[in-house]
Amino acid sequence: MHIHIQEFADSPYLKLTAAEFHEAAALAGGIGEGHTLTVGETEAEFAAAAPGIEALIATPAAIRRLDLSIAPKLRLIQSTSAGVDPLAPFDMIPDGVMLLNNRGVHADRAGEFAIMAMLMLATHMPAFATDQRAHRWQRRSSGTVAGMRATIVGVGGLGGGAARRARQFGIHVTGVRNGAAPHPDCDATRPVGDLDLILPHTDFLLLTCPLTAATRNLLDARRLALLPPHAGVINMGRGALVDQPALCAALRAGSIAGAVLDVFTTEPVPPDDPVWDTPNLVMTPHISSDDPARYNAATLASFFAALRALAAGRVPATLVDFARGY
Amino acid sequence: MHIHIQEFADSPYLKLTAAEFHEAAALAGGIGEGHTLTVGETEAEFAAAAPGIEALIATPAAIRRLDLSIAPKLRLIQSTSAGVDPLAPFDMIPDGVMLLNNRGVHADRAGEFAIMAMLMLATHMPAFATDQRAHRWQRRSSGTVAGMRATIVGVGGLGGGAARRARQFGIHVTGVRNGAAPHPDCDATRPVGDLDLILPHTDFLLLTCPLTAATRNLLDARRLALLPPHAGVINMGRGALVDQPALCAALRAGSIAGAVLDVFTTEPVPPDDPVWDTPNLVMTPHISSDDPARYNAATLASFFAALRALAAGRVPATLVDFARGY
Repeated sequence: MHIHIQEFADSPYLKLTAAEFHEAAALAGGIGEGHTLTVGETEAEFAAAAPGIEALIATPAAIRRLDLSIAPKLRLIQSTSAGVDPLAPFDMIPDGVMLLNNRGVHADRAGEFAIMAMLMLATHMPAFATDQRAHRWQRRSSGTVAGMRATIVGVGGLGGGAARRARQFGIHVTGVRNGAAPHPDCDATRPVGDLDLILPHTDFLLLTCPLTAATRNLLDARRLALLPPHAGVINMGRGALVDQPALCAALRAGSIAGAVLDVFTTEPVPPDDPVWDTPNLVMTPHISSDDPARYNAATLASFFAALRALAAGRVPATLVDFARGY
Repeated sequence: MHIHIQEFADSPYLKLTAAEFHEAAALAGGIGEGHTLTVGETEAEFAAAAPGIEALIATPAAIRRLDLSIAPKLRLIQSTSAGVDPLAPFDMIPDGVMLLNNRGVHADRAGEFAIMAMLMLATHMPAFATDQRAHRWQRRSSGTVAGMRATIVGVGGLGGGAARRARQFGIHVTGVRNGAAPHPDCDATRPVGDLDLILPHTDFLLLTCPLTAATRNLLDARRLALLPPHAGVINMGRGALVDQPALCAALRAGSIAGAVLDVFTTEPVPPDDPVWDTPNLVMTPHISSDDPARYNAATLASFFAALRALAAGRVPATLVDFARGY
């Protein structure tokens, strides 16, 4: 198979290399053998390889920049991120081409970020950060988190990793998902339609769901008002899951206690955005699920697992359903 | 026994009440029965009760404010904190009076604060806090903490709690203590004389030891220079364990990556102290071991356990050794 990795030279973050590909191919056994690899850093390099390309590996942002119609043999695209919302509604994916994401590779790292953020909220770290900026010494009591209640919206790779760590600390975890199938790492699962009933009993609200037409603006002003005043919000999914101005207003008003946000409606966040100075808010620059030492290897292992499934006539577990958006 | 609780009305933090005492006494069984309790909020109230007082329960700061020579029957003082360094060199404790601390009651909460701080350092949260103040979006990669190395100086209650949580995340824990007796929650233990050899191989340096003449200024400029540039420092012990200006200088110079400090050389930290604006530093106001919902009950349980030991002719496990200072 002719496999092409496209990495634009101007987006070097977590760049996937030919050497990493060959290492992963060697680990994959028979399914990793006999492929032709090309790597492109410009549109011209993609165009040069395009006539033969059967599989493309790239970020959703890179995929958007390419003219896929010049690659007539293309049948498989591996996204190097789990969230493929930049490609929705997927009309630029040619008919008959399968889109794979890398769901699941972020679970361990995401679990660590999530429990860190929950402990930070329980310890009032967002308020202490605001105090530090103001040179203000104000003790605020807290305690252990055992028995506190986390509501995790989306219990796939990220949310599942978060649930596992939260339960190690005795936190009661309610997973919110489409349907209400049980999850081995949740104390309870509830359908997303019940979210409004759960919010008043939530200490930590963690968003780890994909961004789709159904989840855009999920946490709006009305739902923020359903949270108790001591509650904290964590967003590790996508910025547009939240009405960001409404969240900042809730933090300024003290109607919720704190937030740890890793994702934002506009990224990078512009220097003059009011979000930077919002009180009781801790910001990180979209890094909560990174794990550079393992990330590319895990993505490539996921790609070869998908090839193995296809060779056996099975549907890859990472196939994106265009109707659902993930 | 005539037991007196002294709580000055001007220091209301974690105030211990008569109701909490009676609840703890009821839980303690026979050893909790038949005591006379007085509670004082002023020097005059202490003086009124003093002639009969046999046991005193108070913070080290409150104990320092009292004239113990007017309580001739006093034989036992229960400190409501584990660190009794404000009382050193203990010459204001009358001869024959035993001083007890409440070591051990902080372990669970301290363990949660410690793993939170380690995850924050691994995730570059102190640098992101500095970036947020500057409205600067700069991604910094990290990964899971498994295999990273924590050096914990002092593996008593606080350090032991920290070690247990750190190992749940696959962190390799070296406990540094007087002697090198093994510790069930450490991968290795080393005597404090080996500290200089361990620092270059440290990712997280956690200080959880008592402040004594031997540990004052333990982390000075020379030892800070032995840490690798990616290392982070956590102080949950006492501010004077660290040369605070040297630590701030190391953070400004980037010779260490970050710090999470809960204790400071002067507390409250004055508004004009340069520590507030030190880059890559996260500050909390001496709250890392608090657990208000459980704290007073646990301290009182520790007190009754000491009474039980004394009644059985044993030395209480929480007896302070004036020569060691803890």
